[in-house]
Amino acid sequence: MKFCSECAHPVELMVPAGDNRPRYVCVHCETIHYQNPKMVIGSIPVWECDGELQVLLCKRAIEPRYGYWTLPAGFMENNETTADAARRETEEEAGANIELGDLFALLNVAHVHQVHMFYLATLRDLDFAPGEESLDVQMFREREIPWDELAFPTIRTTLEFFFADRARMRAGGGYGFHTQDITRPMRVDS
Amino acid sequence: MKFCSECAHPVELMVPAGDNRPRYVCVHCETIHYQNPKMVIGSIPVWECDGELQVLLCKRAIEPRYGYWTLPAGFMENNETTADAARRETEEEAGANIELGDLFALLNVAHVHQVHMFYLATLRDLDFAPGEESLDVQMFREREIPWDELAFPTIRTTLEFFFADRARMRAGGGYGFHTQDITRPMRVDS
Repeated sequence: MKFCSECAHPVELMVPAGDNRPRYVCVHCETIHYQNPKMVIGSIPVWECDGELQVLLCKRAIEPRYGYWTLPAGFMENNETTADAARRETEEEAGANIELGDLFALLNVAHVHQVHMFYLATLRDLDFAPGEESLDVQMFREREIPWDELAFPTIRTTLEFFFADRARMRAGGGYGFHTQDITRPMRVDS
Repeated sequence: MKFCSECAHPVELMVPAGDNRPRYVCVHCETIHYQNPKMVIGSIPVWECDGELQVLLCKRAIEPRYGYWTLPAGFMENNETTADAARRETEEEAGANIELGDLFALLNVAHVHQVHMFYLATLRDLDFAPGEESLDVQMFREREIPWDELAFPTIRTTLEFFFADRARMRAGGGYGFHTQDITRPMRVDS
């Protein structure tokens, strides 16, 4: 940020009176330009048939991590709820028709100023198709998940939580709600 | 937003190519200025003695809702996690020394572009004091909660969830994780 978005005067990085951290401040019109973390919201769309579960993943058609696999997810927009955002991103990236379930995971990625959230979701049919930001959309059984080609640590962590809960469900448990801090760089191959 | 924060050229509200909603766009340097929801994070600090539980509330010294009671909470900052934000706000607004527990509630307030989250928290001592944004900090038993003088619907909803879980705990339950959409205006007296 170089200029005030209200009056076009150059901004200065300074600690405003009564504050305790540097902000971009316009000394001309006195606007303080706060910068805050963003939410990335997605879903874990599943299809279960004859006791076998498959998870929908999208192959990214955009940077960062072009060509890597992700759960459908993206930046939450103004005027929508976290659930609205999960439904919209799943529709936009995978053309998928889902019934949204509970919030399943909340992952802090503080070093990139993001909080990622993923909802449980059930596919209503297998009539999906890649949107503009996806090269491909495919269903994966647990043993087929491309762990080495996942786009982000939050995708890996969410899928690990998901399959761990699935394993416990055979002993009578249900899906939990999971939180974790991600401190590895987003683009590390892992 | 009137001017580009990168080059000071006037921005235009338009739907960028490949997008489906209006954004502030700089036709000079081609920067798209996205605007996204913000997170407000806080805690429910409690003190339990002889089986009687009290909750800490702060009386707001700032607008909106000056003079009304709130759980300690505020805007999440860059470079911190949601838990970091809950601890920081509790320290800043109430000078309270807490042990943070699990995330307890996530409330969507879409019409003001906010998501509010509250963590469970246990006070380590009763050595608290109002910060710059609080007129007063007090402990309240359930029957003493000033329901008609609470600052925001998300505070009321979070406290309702909290005491409902407490009531169920007498029958052997634990604290859950709760989500809700708030569609009432933030400043309505309720």
